[in-house]
Amino acid sequence: MAKKIKAPSGMRDFLPDELRKRKYVIKIISDIYEKHGFSPLETPSMERLSLLLDKYGDEGEKLVFKIMKRGDKLARALADGKNESELADMGLRYDLTVPLARVYSNNRHQLTGTFKRYQIQPVWRADRPARGRFREFYQCDVDIIGSSHFFAELDIFLAVCEIMDKLNFSDYFLSLNDRNLLSAILKGFACPAELETSVLTTLDKLDKIGVKGVVGELESKELPDGLQEKLKDYVTAMAEVKDEGNQAVLEKFSIFIRGFNDSSALKYLEKIEKIMTIFSELGYADRLIFDPLLARGLDYYTGSIFELKIGEEKSSFGGGGRYDNLIGDIGGQQVAAVGFSFGLERIIDHLLAKEMLEIEHGVDLCLACLDEKYFTYAAKVAAIFRNQEIKVDFYPRKRSPSKIFRWASKKGIPRVVLIGGDEVTEKKITVKNFSTGKFVEIKLDKIDDFIKKIKT
Amino acid sequence: MAKKIKAPSGMRDFLPDELRKRKYVIKIISDIYEKHGFSPLETPSMERLSLLLDKYGDEGEKLVFKIMKRGDKLARALADGKNESELADMGLRYDLTVPLARVYSNNRHQLTGTFKRYQIQPVWRADRPARGRFREFYQCDVDIIGSSHFFAELDIFLAVCEIMDKLNFSDYFLSLNDRNLLSAILKGFACPAELETSVLTTLDKLDKIGVKGVVGELESKELPDGLQEKLKDYVTAMAEVKDEGNQAVLEKFSIFIRGFNDSSALKYLEKIEKIMTIFSELGYADRLIFDPLLARGLDYYTGSIFELKIGEEKSSFGGGGRYDNLIGDIGGQQVAAVGFSFGLERIIDHLLAKEMLEIEHGVDLCLACLDEKYFTYAAKVAAIFRNQEIKVDFYPRKRSPSKIFRWASKKGIPRVVLIGGDEVTEKKITVKNFSTGKFVEIKLDKIDDFIKKIKT
Repeated sequence: MAKKIKAPSGMRDFLPDELRKRKYVIKIISDIYEKHGFSPLETPSMERLSLLLDKYGDEGEKLVFKIMKRGDKLARALADGKNESELADMGLRYDLTVPLARVYSNNRHQLTGTFKRYQIQPVWRADRPARGRFREFYQCDVDIIGSSHFFAELDIFLAVCEIMDKLNFSDYFLSLNDRNLLSAILKGFACPAELETSVLTTLDKLDKIGVKGVVGELESKELPDGLQEKLKDYVTAMAEVKDEGNQAVLEKFSIFIRGFNDSSALKYLEKIEKIMTIFSELGYADRLIFDPLLARGLDYYTGSIFELKIGEEKSSFGGGGRYDNLIGDIGGQQVAAVGFSFGLERIIDHLLAKEMLEIEHGVDLCLACLDEKYFTYAAKVAAIFRNQEIKVDFYPRKRSPSKIFRWASKKGIPRVVLIGGDEVTEKKITVKNFSTGKFVEIKLDKIDDFIKKIKT
Repeated sequence: MAKKIKAPSGMRDFLPDELRKRKYVIKIISDIYEKHGFSPLETPSMERLSLLLDKYGDEGEKLVFKIMKRGDKLARALADGKNESELADMGLRYDLTVPLARVYSNNRHQLTGTFKRYQIQPVWRADRPARGRFREFYQCDVDIIGSSHFFAELDIFLAVCEIMDKLNFSDYFLSLNDRNLLSAILKGFACPAELETSVLTTLDKLDKIGVKGVVGELESKELPDGLQEKLKDYVTAMAEVKDEGNQAVLEKFSIFIRGFNDSSALKYLEKIEKIMTIFSELGYADRLIFDPLLARGLDYYTGSIFELKIGEEKSSFGGGGRYDNLIGDIGGQQVAAVGFSFGLERIIDHLLAKEMLEIEHGVDLCLACLDEKYFTYAAKVAAIFRNQEIKVDFYPRKRSPSKIFRWASKKGIPRVVLIGGDEVTEKKITVKNFSTGKFVEIKLDKIDDFIKKIKT
């Protein structure tokens, strides 16, 4: 067999040091979701291909990893004209939202009322691998099904902020907008429906390309008479107040909305204002920013949309919104829903790059037994440590102390406990501490003091 | 789209109650492995198909889920004669041992010395689904690479026993044998090499079909003159002492081995004896049973083999052994290795069937806010609880108390905290406790006492 068989392209092996850091971040996220009353859910890695391809369209057709049929079914498909679409019956999970919708519609009776779930599992996309873009990566979703009230948005925002605080991010914030306000603006400006997506995509780039860039893009589009001027005025006005705080943005934005005489739009604006006020009262004033140009890509959003940002970083670290129709599309009956997906991989990368995760070695000490006849004593000593939550790596070979020291020191293990004949006879242990370089002998009846020292 | 799209055949959605129990078991296992100095490892769900098919042979060809090639590569494969084997390039992970061997040989320099790892991830097999047999299921492996000493076996056994103790199993034990002893017996009886597998498979059935069954199967085989008698004597002798404890089995067995004048076999027997003695000294005398008929299926074992059993249950709850050649087969350079795989799914099933896992609801209380203007107060109350590790499910809708009570009670949430106008004015909370059916009002300055009560 070939030597050096690599992991598949765009996929990663997680060796212990990196994996421990990932697990640390995932544990913080799931603990906080649990404390906020969200329940865990896990779904199979595969879904029926019909469900996946129906939901993600052309993108899905290209990017879903497809599982080949097996046995007779494959033989028949190969015999029957060998059409690509007939050869596979399942696909790997592409996101966590479609599986959630399927689970909810299959278990509607049991999950009735509201269902608040979080799900942290890998997804797969056959994208071209690139820096920071993988073909297998974790998603971390939290959703509330069964509530159309903005309490649900607040419930999610509070959990997200607690997670970001706990991860020691000081400069994060959530951008907030509502799809209905975007529609109201475009309707007010009499923008033709077929141009909406193109116009929204351009407006959404204000943070990235500035007023000039946005105006330039607008000028390059073929827009009806007057629409270009209206959009330019609007984006210029929004850019002017952008950095003056939520109140200024809300006031300026509401001038446009009030100009349209659109009472339902005013209701959506009022909802945004209420959410902002409550968040301020809770001491999170700077964590929620009203951004009337935020658009977000996915078609299925029907109300609020939001993105998690960190400081000046252009790209988002998570996002979500309200999707009151998606579950009905999959399961038959409409149910209100709102959700947020943490950009887990990007957040971990950021924490690693900024060295915000302490490098914690997994093991407190290595315990080595110099001969078989001392094993029982050594195992009893190991048990004393482990019973007090000290992580003991038993060295599973019989080698000389110097070789053991070299190995442990290379591995970054802070100390080695040696068990030889003297240790057994005198009921003691001998410790080599790499930070001091010294040997210390400790009697078993004083081991508790030693354990206390390790723990501090 | 069709209603009621199910999860793929043989795969499971894990809803919150069941998932919490699974997570509880997995956490116990991983915490204990960590305390024993094993490091976590995770590998991609896919491996290159060449690696998988080469390693699992015919079984793999049938049971590995294959990922179809994509884009141009698929088009070319379809144009080029449409051969089944050309259509796929990757397969889903079939076990955790082959990925470990690949990772080790790719990172040999970094993992040098000994590498003790645990890995808990799903694997996939396109088997016919049946009760207790799934197409996606978790494996939970622990392995030590780089030690040929029996310290490594002991290291694994001690962690396994600690896990079983912690999970409250009272009647588990490990069966232990050595492939080299099986070979020595067959060599001593002059059994032809081509009959070895067949004979061992029959001997291994003693627990399941008894002496008569084994003798019957032996009689149905075409064996050389004298071999049948020798095997019958042997299995009868072993069955006689089987229930008389390790010492009796070891003594009886060693009579056969000594009869062969095979000094290397005596060495392997001596190793077994040493392991048994040490285990006894550690208070685990009943947890390790020498079973000279234990064979285990996999070809790659080269030394000790072992299985985890529970009470009278015929099937095993985990198993493993020493495989000193496998990593060399994959990576080029021979490295000693020994590992154990927990039958995680079977253990969880057993714990559930015997009701050995407490049914713990995920949430301590549901907090409901009766109007938007009380939300800030409600969120502050929720934060007080959560800061003291109370799990608070905020009810994300605006509904009447009676509807909230009905929902919470159906969900099994033990109590509801209501926040309305009086609560805000009088700085209190109103609690409906479902176990007493009573309402209690608690002033905010007494909330710590209430939290203490919830915790006990």
